[in-house]
Amino acid sequence: MTPFSAGEVLARCDVLATITAATDGIERSYLTPEHARANWTVGEWMDEAGLTAWQDAAGNQRGSLKGPSPEAPVLILGSHLDTVPGAGRYDGILGTLMAIAVVGRLRARGAALPFGIEVIGFADEEGTRFGRTLLGSCAVAGTWQESWWSLRDPHGVTLRDAFVAFGLDPERVGDAALDPSRVVGYLEAHIEQGPLLQDAGRALGVVEGIMGARRFELEMIGEAGHAGGMPYGRRRDALLGASEVVGAVEELARGAGAIGTVGRLRAFPGAMNVIPGRVEFSLDLRAETDQLRDQVWDEIEETALKAAAARNLAFEVSELHAARATAVAPTLASAVEAGIRATGDPAPMRLMSKAGHDAMAIADLCDYAMLFIRCKDGISHHRDEDVRADDVELALDAFEAAVLAVADAHG
Amino acid sequence: MTPFSAGEVLARCDVLATITAATDGIERSYLTPEHARANWTVGEWMDEAGLTAWQDAAGNQRGSLKGPSPEAPVLILGSHLDTVPGAGRYDGILGTLMAIAVVGRLRARGAALPFGIEVIGFADEEGTRFGRTLLGSCAVAGTWQESWWSLRDPHGVTLRDAFVAFGLDPERVGDAALDPSRVVGYLEAHIEQGPLLQDAGRALGVVEGIMGARRFELEMIGEAGHAGGMPYGRRRDALLGASEVVGAVEELARGAGAIGTVGRLRAFPGAMNVIPGRVEFSLDLRAETDQLRDQVWDEIEETALKAAAARNLAFEVSELHAARATAVAPTLASAVEAGIRATGDPAPMRLMSKAGHDAMAIADLCDYAMLFIRCKDGISHHRDEDVRADDVELALDAFEAAVLAVADAHG
Repeated sequence: MTPFSAGEVLARCDVLATITAATDGIERSYLTPEHARANWTVGEWMDEAGLTAWQDAAGNQRGSLKGPSPEAPVLILGSHLDTVPGAGRYDGILGTLMAIAVVGRLRARGAALPFGIEVIGFADEEGTRFGRTLLGSCAVAGTWQESWWSLRDPHGVTLRDAFVAFGLDPERVGDAALDPSRVVGYLEAHIEQGPLLQDAGRALGVVEGIMGARRFELEMIGEAGHAGGMPYGRRRDALLGASEVVGAVEELARGAGAIGTVGRLRAFPGAMNVIPGRVEFSLDLRAETDQLRDQVWDEIEETALKAAAARNLAFEVSELHAARATAVAPTLASAVEAGIRATGDPAPMRLMSKAGHDAMAIADLCDYAMLFIRCKDGISHHRDEDVRADDVELALDAFEAAVLAVADAHG
Repeated sequence: MTPFSAGEVLARCDVLATITAATDGIERSYLTPEHARANWTVGEWMDEAGLTAWQDAAGNQRGSLKGPSPEAPVLILGSHLDTVPGAGRYDGILGTLMAIAVVGRLRARGAALPFGIEVIGFADEEGTRFGRTLLGSCAVAGTWQESWWSLRDPHGVTLRDAFVAFGLDPERVGDAALDPSRVVGYLEAHIEQGPLLQDAGRALGVVEGIMGARRFELEMIGEAGHAGGMPYGRRRDALLGASEVVGAVEELARGAGAIGTVGRLRAFPGAMNVIPGRVEFSLDLRAETDQLRDQVWDEIEETALKAAAARNLAFEVSELHAARATAVAPTLASAVEAGIRATGDPAPMRLMSKAGHDAMAIADLCDYAMLFIRCKDGISHHRDEDVRADDVELALDAFEAAVLAVADAHG
């Protein structure tokens, strides 16, 4: 395998795909044995590329390349190593491994950079285990919240206990943070997770910004009862209320040009002959502007409260996460654009990211820009997630050229 | 505690309520440690009442009272000891403990019966663990199906393996069956699980028949994808399809005067930022006639297939259970009615059971009749399930008188 080639990067994606808690697609969540194994494996690759590999105080896998002087700032490159359940092998992982390969290439060509490089494989972007996304990148940005320690996973384990069980010290999570005055910026490569590049017949694109998202845990509460004996007029069926909300989310979000998804829904107690007394479900809501997103949420909430009242149910809302829409930094985005132009595309496509990324959290630390890579049919968060090797080769060239363009602008 | 009184019966319901796998309501399902403990406890009470207690080859807890001669047939009395998840303390349990108490009363008064008595605490009426209801009573009726051995619980354990782990021999399940030529009939007392007796201001009622039920496992299959990146036009969101079916079940069943309930529903993979690629859900459908019930199912299926087609989903159906509507035997129902009249109600109320009961399975073995007891607000399959002590006292008197009436008719 040619070192630092697309072939090597993709083969490493295949290796990481074997580090999974489930067999039907990949499942690798925060502070699990799979997380530890992935970090260890990626650390070896970091060392091979000339980076000094280490795991930070929040469980992020990091690799440091010294700058020209002890006072030199760092450019951060990276993406995440965790996955949703049933995931494919490229979301986050490809960007992390590309960052390592690009450092290897830069060292191989003896590039003299005016800054150090910090490659980061973020430990928790998806928020699969504790519901709150971007835990890894918030630690690096210095925006970790004390209230998160009491978040619980589906088995009732708190984030604090999971931290300790993983071998981390909750008191030291602040050590993972970088000093903003010593950071040049953040570049992230990522698969698009949508079909726009494919539809336009392009391999690569420049991200203009990331949509704001809000995430909610919702609950409909009625009363369980016998599926046969309880007449319709007396039922307080929580699932009928929740199903109305599921339909309303699509109708209201779609109508407004926003995106709403109920990804999790479960009826309790969950027996065939028992009327559901309670339904737990989630809502993920995104839009190009925070204003539009908030307006759609208000409409959804109003509809849900009406549906609940009509069925004598209680509707409860807990907001887990709100991220404002963020824009890339023009200088860094120009470097990414220059990188893509260097691969022979004279006018790179610009597009919004509808998906969230570690860059949203890192935006609190420093400027950022992102490179998008075409993915097959826009499929992501699914085992069929796929990329083309020739696209990844172009992406490596573009990402390397982007780092050199940042160096030029900085120097 | 006065022996064989309502107070004793209700205190024993409280004791059994402590034998549970969960704390939020009772959960006691087939072939679990709780099942074994409940059988052992009820067996002691059977012995105290003068019955010979034993556990049969299907895990039913039985107590036998000899008849006047070795050739004498038996009258079966009983109900079930298993529960749904989150159950109350009376559904099935009250009827089983009443049967034991009535045998104790008959022995105490030295009643000479022309038949033996077999009290049965059926081991699986609800079907909570393996999806198929009435396993215990089917074993007694001799209608156990070989195909059931491969049924699996939610953890993937087969019925066969659970049988062996409980200490039962799958090859000998046939030993639990009674010989129809040696059975007089079956009498069951049960809470109504509906509000009709309460609404009519009556403590007891005579059951006319049991509605037929069909139970289905349903599945909507689409494709998982990223909750942000995948545009609406390309989504194959299985939860949106399933939610339409949930709404249609209510609309179609209610409109036709039938009863349909989706008690179980869960979206997979079940992450906040992943479009559901698959939804598993259940349907329980009941009506006064099998024809009406089947017609409503046809309409639901047609609607589900249309919803699936419109969203590019697959809709799959697996029928777990179909029970025809059954009618009580007029002679035995007259005995129950005579029993209620003996308590001072000159014209006992007659009503259909919308809930299923062990009597449905025992109907394949022999004639049956049932006594219904008022339950508070019709609430059942819920921890708030409740009965009045004075109603239970009347019910014991009526049930005892009903057995004597059967003896008179038989003799």
